[in-house]
Amino acid sequence: MLRAAVIGLGYWGPNLARNFASSQRIELRWLCDLDESRLSSMRSRYPSARTSSDPEEVFNDPDLDAVAIATPVSTHYEVAKRALLAGKHVLVEKPLAANSEQAQELMELARARNLVLFVDHVFLYSPSVQKMGQIYRSGEIGEIRFIDSVRINLGLIQNDVNVLWDLAPHDLSIIDFLLGRAPVSVVAVGESHVANGMVDVSYLHLDYGEVKAAVHLNWLSPVKIRHFMVGGSKKSILYNDLDRSESIKVYDRGVNVDSGEAINRRGLLVSYRSGDVLSPRLDSFEPLAQMLGHFADCIEGGETPISGGDQGLRVVRILEAADRSLAHGGERHPVQT
Amino acid sequence: MLRAAVIGLGYWGPNLARNFASSQRIELRWLCDLDESRLSSMRSRYPSARTSSDPEEVFNDPDLDAVAIATPVSTHYEVAKRALLAGKHVLVEKPLAANSEQAQELMELARARNLVLFVDHVFLYSPSVQKMGQIYRSGEIGEIRFIDSVRINLGLIQNDVNVLWDLAPHDLSIIDFLLGRAPVSVVAVGESHVANGMVDVSYLHLDYGEVKAAVHLNWLSPVKIRHFMVGGSKKSILYNDLDRSESIKVYDRGVNVDSGEAINRRGLLVSYRSGDVLSPRLDSFEPLAQMLGHFADCIEGGETPISGGDQGLRVVRILEAADRSLAHGGERHPVQT
Amino acid sequence: MLRAAVIGLGYWGPNLARNFASSQRIELRWLCDLDESRLSSMRSRYPSARTSSDPEEVFNDPDLDAVAIATPVSTHYEVAKRALLAGKHVLVEKPLAANSEQAQELMELARARNLVLFVDHVFLYSPSVQKMGQIYRSGEIGEIRFIDSVRINLGLIQNDVNVLWDLAPHDLSIIDFLLGRAPVSVVAVGESHVANGMVDVSYLHLDYGEVKAAVHLNWLSPVKIRHFMVGGSKKSILYNDLDRSESIKVYDRGVNVDSGEAINRRGLLVSYRSGDVLSPRLDSFEPLAQMLGHFADCIEGGETPISGGDQGLRVVRILEAADRSLAHGGERHPVQT
Amino acid sequence: MLRAAVIGLGYWGPNLARNFASSQRIELRWLCDLDESRLSSMRSRYPSARTSSDPEEVFNDPDLDAVAIATPVSTHYEVAKRALLAGKHVLVEKPLAANSEQAQELMELARARNLVLFVDHVFLYSPSVQKMGQIYRSGEIGEIRFIDSVRINLGLIQNDVNVLWDLAPHDLSIIDFLLGRAPVSVVAVGESHVANGMVDVSYLHLDYGEVKAAVHLNWLSPVKIRHFMVGGSKKSILYNDLDRSESIKVYDRGVNVDSGEAINRRGLLVSYRSGDVLSPRLDSFEPLAQMLGHFADCIEGGETPISGGDQGLRVVRILEAADRSLAHGGERHPVQT
Repeated sequence: MLRAAVIGLGYWGPNLARNFASSQRIELRWLCDLDESRLSSMRSRYPSARTSSDPEEVFNDPDLDAVAIATPVSTHYEVAKRALLAGKHVLVEKPLAANSEQAQELMELARARNLVLFVDHVFLYSPSVQKMGQIYRSGEIGEIRFIDSVRINLGLIQNDVNVLWDLAPHDLSIIDFLLGRAPVSVVAVGESHVANGMVDVSYLHLDYGEVKAAVHLNWLSPVKIRHFMVGGSKKSILYNDLDRSESIKVYDRGVNVDSGEAINRRGLLVSYRSGDVLSPRLDSFEPLAQMLGHFADCIEGGETPISGGDQGLRVVRILEAADRSLAHGGERHPVQT
Repeated sequence: MLRAAVIGLGYWGPNLARNFASSQRIELRWLCDLDESRLSSMRSRYPSARTSSDPEEVFNDPDLDAVAIATPVSTHYEVAKRALLAGKHVLVEKPLAANSEQAQELMELARARNLVLFVDHVFLYSPSVQKMGQIYRSGEIGEIRFIDSVRINLGLIQNDVNVLWDLAPHDLSIIDFLLGRAPVSVVAVGESHVANGMVDVSYLHLDYGEVKAAVHLNWLSPVKIRHFMVGGSKKSILYNDLDRSESIKVYDRGVNVDSGEAINRRGLLVSYRSGDVLSPRLDSFEPLAQMLGHFADCIEGGETPISGGDQGLRVVRILEAADRSLAHGGERHPVQT
Repeated sequence: MLRAAVIGLGYWGPNLARNFASSQRIELRWLCDLDESRLSSMRSRYPSARTSSDPEEVFNDPDLDAVAIATPVSTHYEVAKRALLAGKHVLVEKPLAANSEQAQELMELARARNLVLFVDHVFLYSPSVQKMGQIYRSGEIGEIRFIDSVRINLGLIQNDVNVLWDLAPHDLSIIDFLLGRAPVSVVAVGESHVANGMVDVSYLHLDYGEVKAAVHLNWLSPVKIRHFMVGGSKKSILYNDLDRSESIKVYDRGVNVDSGEAINRRGLLVSYRSGDVLSPRLDSFEPLAQMLGHFADCIEGGETPISGGDQGLRVVRILEAADRSLAHGGERHPVQT
Repeated sequence: MLRAAVIGLGYWGPNLARNFASSQRIELRWLCDLDESRLSSMRSRYPSARTSSDPEEVFNDPDLDAVAIATPVSTHYEVAKRALLAGKHVLVEKPLAANSEQAQELMELARARNLVLFVDHVFLYSPSVQKMGQIYRSGEIGEIRFIDSVRINLGLIQNDVNVLWDLAPHDLSIIDFLLGRAPVSVVAVGESHVANGMVDVSYLHLDYGEVKAAVHLNWLSPVKIRHFMVGGSKKSILYNDLDRSESIKVYDRGVNVDSGEAINRRGLLVSYRSGDVLSPRLDSFEPLAQMLGHFADCIEGGETPISGGDQGLRVVRILEAADRSLAHGGERHPVQT
């Protein structure tokens, strides 16, 4: 049984703790936070775990295998680095780090020490995204032409990260999961509508070569929308994360070109397909538990993380380029590779 | 009773003819198209109207008051100019012309001759958009912060105009109706995914100073979405054109700043409101009939068109700037004023 | 080309006229109504049709083949009988007649004279119901266990028929189309909530032996719902007439019994399936045009009407039994066969 | 601080335990179940609670104030009676008892001993139902004309109670909460479609005098629906428990009679209103926590339970009459009062 620590018990850390505690493969050995009141409330819930306000004390535990880091983004690098230097496998809340130099250093450090560096891109482990990946890889939808993701709702305005750094890692990691590569360039527009100068409404346009992707992030929307659309050359997918019973739909609808079968009213050779819509059965599991199982597989079985440091780095590089684009009024900026 | 002609009997012209025919204020006097089969089918439906394949014959009718033009975009300028020169009031299908020089010339010609130049921005005359305008002007939603419009579906690929020129006039005219001014600049990204080089998926980002607007146009979407969201400082509106029973919703939800009432978890002074949602009763009328009534008011009563040549020109200028931005990889381009 | 008359030009008659006028197989020869203003408005729209306020004049036309009757229900019998006696094929608005004696007499008269007696159960000719019939007949959903239909909205209160006679023929004809037989008995409850004593909210429970069906009809509902659910032993269908893009969904979900695979928490041998949901592509056609084509096939090609007098009679018998049940506080009443 | 026990740790008991444990007013003092494995799993979660497999041991604790009973329905009476005889306040999972004699005896016993008898009709304590009650009591919707509730989904087939006893207490308690009285009579139809003879699809029709109510319960529906519609003389309410953002909607739509303003096409004096739709803001709280707070108020402050033994008895009497009606083919049966 692996022994793990959770560092940072604010919003997300308790979820990690709960899943470690109920896991058959990972023991919740340490809970760590600077805030004593959080520690004490968690201590009463998980009496068998040790608690500390000092990460070093945790990392010094020779029997500890892995560390899950859910501290503020600005501290990810420092905490993760110390954990890796102490020989621990590391899982980091998204985004991996506050800039790409940090992310790259963590990735290299983990590689050099043969440790797992894992990013908490938890959506990749949901039944919906897993199914979407299977469908795409099966060839059923053909080549991807475009991706359009809308992730908007009345969100908690933050003052250490803008809406891109807060929300886009979800979309960017799902796109990365599907395409397995970085975009060439990005155009980002956005605005800070409420006082603190943090962009709260933003749009990303990503050029992945043949594939173009757009992402709409918005903390000010009165309605909550979670639409992720994948337009393929054969079929298209709509992943609606808010539709509890039919979150994935595969549409056999689209436009065929050069088919020779039809001429539209102004002369173009195209034909339109309007076929079945299929909402496939999804397995039922908690994404976080699934993710931690994969984390354990990576540590124990040497599997390559689906959301490893390389993906985390690609996501951070996109966010950096997006910030540069935002700062230059939407200028197209290359994404570092 | 005003006497009107319809020039161009393809897709939209028959709707104009039908509404003229059932109007109490406008008589359908002429039907004109180059295609004899279209003429004859319309002739049997409206036996009291005259038909011609030559617009000049129509314009030469001294008893004719007004001409509605529903020919291909590339011909709008030529046909409208000849109608104005013949002293007729003119209604033109959107967009007003194929470029801004043409649009401006038409506007000036109409002004010089004291004729009505009216653009068929028909959505402005729908119960939903009329209500949205009333609500905004009442001050209920406060200052507009952002507008986000999504107009996507499996659409008819055209080979004389791209998806922007085909669909965006709807959104741009609604935004113009609300804001009453032109944007400063535009960023447009897009792609031609099917063979003919015409952009079929596109995004517009418009800078109206304090207000930022985004429009998503897509001919390849497997699902049809018509969402027009107006984020205000007090309340927000969602206009969902596909919701037949509650197409307008006013959300008393949002973020207040500097209220002093609440400090979020990372120190910003903001508070969140989550209040009632109101879907106001809408009048029930056909937008096209409403528009033609207003057209008659402008001719007979000297009213200023809600969708006059000036608005038509502003829309065309945005489309031109958007084309330039598209051609330069999404570079921000100023909109001519 | 068949020559047809439309008798009764109130709400539904003009739709029949329009479809005859645009049909390639049936000529609109006569328009008949007691109301001169209706006649004159229709005359201007269909100048080639003859008009009359006297059905006898119409029936006396020796070149007339068929008569479509859209007069008030109470007159169906008299008008249809005279048309049949005049040797005309007859299409009658639903319900076929005001009572089962009349319906039966019409059916027998048509049979004796070898004329087509056709009931305007127009929903049977919609793409959705046609597809539902195909799916059921293919065996895909197994045996039907239950049917539940909800047809409610803020409806026009009528004072010659109650909500059952107004709306239930739609549901009852669809059920008849699927099952092809009459129910054994019916329980009907209902109430007249607004002043005139006509039942405006009602529920029907139909016993078709193995299959049980329920229908909810309501003129007072603030929301419009059109749900027709077919629970099968293998799969189930939901036909939502208001869902324009996915009106038919086939659910591979259900309960299996005696499977031996699972024991629920209290000991019953059942297993639950939760599989794919498929929304099949539907053809796109107007139900009324499709129906009139079938009417022509029945006249010219000797086909048996899908919605013939026998079905019309079964529907009327259910309505009669339902009225009796309503009058006796929901007592179960047999349906005459 | 009140001290409470939870008897029965199957499906619902753990929820009660969790809410007692997090309550500021009630201490979770005892956990009781016959199954040792359940007890031990709960013991590790709530180390400060005592555990027992014998209810008598629990009831003998002189410091215990209240007992929450979540055992099988057939045992409610016996366990509750013993708790009351031991002088404890009692909260019983719905339905209160397996028959009305038992329910009445419990009610009388509690009354005689001046103890609180409380039924776990938890929906009454949800933000949605609370708001619905406020709206109705404010007079805004006028007199209630009809109630229609649909509670269907692929449910767990049970073999100790039919679908009525399993699900209808929710609907019946909400109706009782609104009307505050028992129905005069009931018509129930239903069928056991899967092998064990337990009715799995059922419809209840309740006569409350001026108000008529219908409830559709179904364990075999492939889709989940939770619609509770209240038709009023002025306005109507739709409570859709699955709509997370707008679960309550108030429709200013309806039919007015004798208004003198309009004559419908067949002569009845009615007018139709189509006004605003309002979805009021709802408070955000967990129904179960709210309910337990009210339970504490009843014990400590002498408040009358919203869902007391009298309501529990009325619900059981309806279920009994419904079972009799089911057994007699839908015959109308009086409800005992």
